[in-house]
Amino acid sequence: MSSNKVKPKFVLHPQLEKDTFFIGSLNLSNILLMNDSRYPWVILVPQCIDAVDITDLSIEQRAEFIEEINRVADLIKQQYQPDRLNIAMLGNIVPQLHCHIIARFKQDFAWAKPVWGIGDSIAYTKEQQDEILPSLQSLLLRS
Amino acid sequence: MSSNKVKPKFVLHPQLEKDTFFIGSLNLSNILLMNDSRYPWVILVPQCIDAVDITDLSIEQRAEFIEEINRVADLIKQQYQPDRLNIAMLGNIVPQLHCHIIARFKQDFAWAKPVWGIGDSIAYTKEQQDEILPSLQSLLLRS
Repeated sequence: MSSNKVKPKFVLHPQLEKDTFFIGSLNLSNILLMNDSRYPWVILVPQCIDAVDITDLSIEQRAEFIEEINRVADLIKQQYQPDRLNIAMLGNIVPQLHCHIIARFKQDFAWAKPVWGIGDSIAYTKEQQDEILPSLQSLLLRS
Repeated sequence: MSSNKVKPKFVLHPQLEKDTFFIGSLNLSNILLMNDSRYPWVILVPQCIDAVDITDLSIEQRAEFIEEINRVADLIKQQYQPDRLNIAMLGNIVPQLHCHIIARFKQDFAWAKPVWGIGDSIAYTKEQQDEILPSLQSLLLRS
């Protein structure tokens, strides 16, 4: 007898949906690219329904999440050679657990401040999207 | 025959030394309290010499670090019942790996922005220090 219970599906928060491009999925997290061409700025979102903070994950999920953050951070550092890397889970606006990974340069728009709330984002042009999206897919999803 | 090699000692970055109070040490990390009474704001600093990013830690150190972050975050949430928790490793100013854990409230000074660079910090008075330092030691260092 089949069950009528439907397993709830993970749904990305509409604000993240609006502000980002989907790059692909790791085992735990979706990888998004923030649509702001001022910074190499990716976001990892664990596909865990109702998770707001890391305290909502299991110990195994946290271990996997930090390793996915670490792997993406390492690849972003290799690719972009930034002066610094910012890693942050804020959630003031979007109450769905997500981790920003941002390559920072001493010449960038907001340096040395954090990027949030500094000036207006500059969306990627179609040409830039056609370049960066496959490039990040190739960089971050290779096994 | 004894070796003349001296094991290097972990030394807290002078800016963190200047801006914080020492609460105590977990197995991996020192716990500091930011001297800004506007927010319950602690900082974890893994005692790993020359670590700038989480990519500089071993996989075992990262697993321990995220669990120490999680434990402190959980206790801060229980104690202060914030609207949100901000967890961030930025390092633009201080190139020594450290993780901010900040309890945020919808009525706080910087809401909904991140706290950095918004207004001037308000140091704890001597009376406030005498209350919060033992309180946080009791909260965060109990086994």
